[in-house]
Amino acid sequence: MIAMPPGATLGVLGGGQLGRMLALAAARLGLDVHVFDPEPRSAAARVAARETCAPFADADAVAGFARACAVVTYEFENVPAEAAAITAAAGLLRPGAKALAIAQDRIDEKAFARACGAETTPHAAIETRADLDAALARLGVPAVLKTRRLGYDGKGQVWLRAPEDADAAWAALGGASGILEAAVPIARELSLIGARAADGATAFYDLCENRHEAGILRQTRAPAPAADAFAARARAIASAMLERLDYVGVLAVELFETKDGRLLVNEIAPRVHNSGHWTIEGAATSQFEQHVRAVMGWPLGDPTALGAALMTNLIGPDADRWAAFAAEPGAHLHLYAKGEARPGRKMGHVTRIARAQGER
Amino acid sequence: MIAMPPGATLGVLGGGQLGRMLALAAARLGLDVHVFDPEPRSAAARVAARETCAPFADADAVAGFARACAVVTYEFENVPAEAAAITAAAGLLRPGAKALAIAQDRIDEKAFARACGAETTPHAAIETRADLDAALARLGVPAVLKTRRLGYDGKGQVWLRAPEDADAAWAALGGASGILEAAVPIARELSLIGARAADGATAFYDLCENRHEAGILRQTRAPAPAADAFAARARAIASAMLERLDYVGVLAVELFETKDGRLLVNEIAPRVHNSGHWTIEGAATSQFEQHVRAVMGWPLGDPTALGAALMTNLIGPDADRWAAFAAEPGAHLHLYAKGEARPGRKMGHVTRIARAQGER
Repeated sequence: MIAMPPGATLGVLGGGQLGRMLALAAARLGLDVHVFDPEPRSAAARVAARETCAPFADADAVAGFARACAVVTYEFENVPAEAAAITAAAGLLRPGAKALAIAQDRIDEKAFARACGAETTPHAAIETRADLDAALARLGVPAVLKTRRLGYDGKGQVWLRAPEDADAAWAALGGASGILEAAVPIARELSLIGARAADGATAFYDLCENRHEAGILRQTRAPAPAADAFAARARAIASAMLERLDYVGVLAVELFETKDGRLLVNEIAPRVHNSGHWTIEGAATSQFEQHVRAVMGWPLGDPTALGAALMTNLIGPDADRWAAFAAEPGAHLHLYAKGEARPGRKMGHVTRIARAQGER
Repeated sequence: MIAMPPGATLGVLGGGQLGRMLALAAARLGLDVHVFDPEPRSAAARVAARETCAPFADADAVAGFARACAVVTYEFENVPAEAAAITAAAGLLRPGAKALAIAQDRIDEKAFARACGAETTPHAAIETRADLDAALARLGVPAVLKTRRLGYDGKGQVWLRAPEDADAAWAALGGASGILEAAVPIARELSLIGARAADGATAFYDLCENRHEAGILRQTRAPAPAADAFAARARAIASAMLERLDYVGVLAVELFETKDGRLLVNEIAPRVHNSGHWTIEGAATSQFEQHVRAVMGWPLGDPTALGAALMTNLIGPDADRWAAFAAEPGAHLHLYAKGEARPGRKMGHVTRIARAQGER
């Protein structure tokens, strides 16, 4: 693809904090951003040159938005298929519809990970109650029943601790397609964020370690401590994924390190990712700039880390303590202007960088 | 003053690149930005939550803008006095009207610098042709005749190489109030960027060395090489200025190092400054975030440098080479989305950081 010059418009489907940080990165490069979100004055739209407010299902609105953009990307992987199809048909959607389709479907996602040489948790597709019983017999308990599509931050997930939990879990699935995953003894979650440019060049950030609370990412440490044994393997998996998808943009691969020392792919996110927020201050090029560079047809930036980073999400009322973070020397405070600090809502984050010897 | 919480609106008078970078810094802290500029869709407005387009002389528009903002600041020191007065009367203007008034008048500025313990170039106020002749007789040639007000980037300046140049210089002044400054053998230009919070705390960035071409800043190096002898003196001057003005925000002090080893104050700019752009990647807290923190009543951030920085302005057609800068490892490219690359127009900048040993 031809590089889109400064002044060109980057469309972003979704107006949350990821869109906001993408917009800020694009602005630094002299690009205009056009945000599409159903809510007016979204977090991203408030820093963008233009916004379209309409449901993602409004095909005319999506088509009009696409006509006003040089490139269209997205900040969440649950972009409705029709909206993706409209922008993809116009040749504008990056990363492509294929990556979106895979990331939207937990069964396809695991098959794709395996095709890229990765291990995954043992699992089974669940369409009927009989499927669930058969899968439970094969995989045992504990196991987790998830919706096959549209889950995030631990939503749409039910744990089965005993075979008797099957009734309640099946009811909770509510007729949706599901996936049953065997419980694997997990030592920790890791993630790898990589990028691929239109010319096929790739770049990878340091492998990260992620700690969750109540299903929501709480902290990311980069580089992941004591993870040298996994770094090359994780890059090989991510490389294979980027190649197979002819991918353009930033891709996040969520991984499990098992207690018996294996590396499993949990999920992929075809977008910038919460576990990459540390790159804003902690890497020579942030994941947001990297994604913008890739989708606009620019060369990738340098992903080299500038120190050891610790990123902490501010969830719900955590953000009320903004003044304390603002006063902490060396703490980089980010707030997303999302209004009400509802419990579980990601309101901001703080990044602390331990820079190498000889500095500060 | 009470700290303005995230979600509050920061008004910015002026929609150029300094306003744009202020808006990007404010956005990161969860603040909304409202840009006032006569031109629609200014560089800053395109990344702001709201814009007002009206002449600065439109008192009603300025008053309406002020009512919609928690704090009002400015990106240029030539804000018309009435606009400043309206916002200052509402208790919203930071830094205050006094700093603006001093910076707008080269005679008052020099008197202020001297009152703060600084040396300045020998100079004289010029109101009449007789004033010019008398000043020339006293100061000699070469000398430079400048408008007393409203000059920037070398505009409104005429050099007198011989007494016979007085006629042409006087004509060029066109009836405006002027200042004649004696030529001082200058080794280089330095600048110091400092900040003062509402609680009186101050912070200073490393002293910078600036190189101009055709009256426009071309490159800034920070820290200024071989300038240890001047750093403490420059800070003392800037400290005195901040105190005397009861200043809140970022202040830039432009200095001359003379060939005979003296330090003179050339100008002050009561705002973020081109010679501080390196702080975006080169300091723990950028000058833009620092200014936002100060004017919103937040604590100052850490100004510590993260390496040796070289900032190069992209002027006019320089910006056409954006793709080369984007491809250069370690070069941080900033483009201002200002449209047409007219000669002499600041279109962007590139910052290169030589980080301390042990990194990269």
